[in-house]
Amino acid sequence: MKLDICQQFGIDFPLFAFSHCRDVVAAVTNAGGFGVLGATAYTPEQLDRELSWIDDHVHGKPYGADIIVPAKFEGKGEKLSKGDLAGRIPVEHKEFVAGLLAEHGIEPEASPRIGGTMLSGDTGPELLEVAMSHPIKLIANALGVPPDYMLEAGRERGVPVAALVGAKEHALKQAAAGVDLIVAQGTEAGGHCGEVSTLVLIPEVLDALEANGSDIPVLAAGGIVTGRQMAAAVAMGASGAWTGSVWLTTEEAETAPHTVQKMLAATSRDTVRSAGRTGKPSRQLVSDWTNAWLPNDEGRKPLPLPLQSMLSEPVLRRVDALAEQGHQGAQALATYFVGQGVGMMNKVKPAREVVADFIEDYLAAAERLGRSLPE
Amino acid sequence: MKLDICQQFGIDFPLFAFSHCRDVVAAVTNAGGFGVLGATAYTPEQLDRELSWIDDHVHGKPYGADIIVPAKFEGKGEKLSKGDLAGRIPVEHKEFVAGLLAEHGIEPEASPRIGGTMLSGDTGPELLEVAMSHPIKLIANALGVPPDYMLEAGRERGVPVAALVGAKEHALKQAAAGVDLIVAQGTEAGGHCGEVSTLVLIPEVLDALEANGSDIPVLAAGGIVTGRQMAAAVAMGASGAWTGSVWLTTEEAETAPHTVQKMLAATSRDTVRSAGRTGKPSRQLVSDWTNAWLPNDEGRKPLPLPLQSMLSEPVLRRVDALAEQGHQGAQALATYFVGQGVGMMNKVKPAREVVADFIEDYLAAAERLGRSLPE
Repeated sequence: MKLDICQQFGIDFPLFAFSHCRDVVAAVTNAGGFGVLGATAYTPEQLDRELSWIDDHVHGKPYGADIIVPAKFEGKGEKLSKGDLAGRIPVEHKEFVAGLLAEHGIEPEASPRIGGTMLSGDTGPELLEVAMSHPIKLIANALGVPPDYMLEAGRERGVPVAALVGAKEHALKQAAAGVDLIVAQGTEAGGHCGEVSTLVLIPEVLDALEANGSDIPVLAAGGIVTGRQMAAAVAMGASGAWTGSVWLTTEEAETAPHTVQKMLAATSRDTVRSAGRTGKPSRQLVSDWTNAWLPNDEGRKPLPLPLQSMLSEPVLRRVDALAEQGHQGAQALATYFVGQGVGMMNKVKPAREVVADFIEDYLAAAERLGRSLPE
Repeated sequence: MKLDICQQFGIDFPLFAFSHCRDVVAAVTNAGGFGVLGATAYTPEQLDRELSWIDDHVHGKPYGADIIVPAKFEGKGEKLSKGDLAGRIPVEHKEFVAGLLAEHGIEPEASPRIGGTMLSGDTGPELLEVAMSHPIKLIANALGVPPDYMLEAGRERGVPVAALVGAKEHALKQAAAGVDLIVAQGTEAGGHCGEVSTLVLIPEVLDALEANGSDIPVLAAGGIVTGRQMAAAVAMGASGAWTGSVWLTTEEAETAPHTVQKMLAATSRDTVRSAGRTGKPSRQLVSDWTNAWLPNDEGRKPLPLPLQSMLSEPVLRRVDALAEQGHQGAQALATYFVGQGVGMMNKVKPAREVVADFIEDYLAAAERLGRSLPE
């Protein structure tokens, strides 16, 4: 496409694909888009291995990495151990979860695990160092303003830094902090998201940046699973699309097979924006787990970040494993981050086919809009 | 524009404008769009007067009327009087509202009014008859499947019938019922709305209709306050845009002046989808009134339709009047239906200027998307 961002990033089609799966990242990059590996769940050693694998498979084509370093979290600045943090999980919450599992026919574990602190930012600098030792062409921070060390590292090594925002005010803050690329993500997005829809957020962010004299490129995110939606975003002034959900039902994806089936069957109304998984509102498949927490009328108030993840992640991994074995209670509880676009994710496809479909659909949409014009 | 819908409705630009203000309806129609008068709050005599005024001002150009006839409401089929219905409002709810007003320095009334049943559907047939006695070119029903008498009247008199939907399943139901035009309205819309965003809903509805062999035209609604967003919708396959919020801050609009000021100052994050006004989820400006009800964590559960309106409307009208006089408590409570697009409604303009701005912005967006294509 003839968009500045294609030249800037050395790509044919400004479709950015966030995925935790290296195969998806490589496939999208090789198909002319831009793959971004979600790196936060990895140890530094694992990340090094994943990025080396990508290097071996993209033959110098551009890709990036995404490291979540939240600006606010429980225990920030207190140098707490995982055990200290775990001690802050109220016993009533542990009992509530145990009761929920029991209602679903899931036995208590002899020594219930408490999850890691992957959303506490403690491994951010190490992961960044590993990422920077590979030929990445973008480093992204999905939660809040990137820390200074990330912005500095990006400048030093000439790697553009991207940040996700869900509101105009946050975009202005990111621009002032010096990021190179803004991903404006609507409330229909999977994972952490704000309340403003993509269709409103994109023009609002672009107007606000322009009024502040900034020409930072903005990618549209949230609900985008087709080329026509990407074309809609470009018509509004976005430089391209940032996508995540659509890769979860690709052949390559790491998504739990039972969850893939749930996603294929889901409509756009089968997701909910709930803090029940991480402590911050994130969009995910509705399930008995999400129903157990606010905003469900009867739901309980979740704990703050990262305590809620520490409580939920080990349980949900156990639930996934049981769901795979056909356990009905576990299947009712199983959930994963996904956006409202899940309603149009109805077929498992190879990632490269998703890219090809995007391009075809984008071109058709541009033609459709062009045909509407008076002669 | 070269779109089938322009020929079908005899318009230049497929921008449909819903407004309770006859001046806006006439101005949009005269500027090449299509004005639709929201008729539900009128008595049959008032509606006749408003439509006659429009007839005198549009010189045969096309316009329409919108009558809300909800499919479900408290007391449906029971032939209840307004007094019977009012008797179903629990005393705790009346006390809760009295307490909320007292907290805001608003004295109780000697005999608190209970509002009309404008959302109970009881005046629908009469309003429809009045509307049909004028040369309307569209009749719309904003809530649920239009009743048979509306569909029949439309067929008999050759007036297309439109229905608003917030989900794919509802669009299929409307198509099966025989409506002529579907307005697919995203969650970012002002007033009653569903949970799916416009950017997701439009392609999902179009795909579902196509898969069912239907070629009913679909207008996009929800958050659309600029021509570039309308162009985005057309790129995705919509036939045009249905708008409401953007007219509330026009020079002609009937909006309470204090509320206009709130809207001009609001960002896209200053709205909430709450059942606190009508009993069904509708998007409106956040205020101390909306904060008093769910989905606010501390909020009370609203009554069903139409009881919540009967409780809230007289209070909110009193609040509006006090807010105009500078009463600070009333200003904190004041609210009105508006979509997330309110963040981009920053200037009072004449309605015809809004249409002109839409056209210019639409053309620029189409050009922008065209420029992105490879040669």
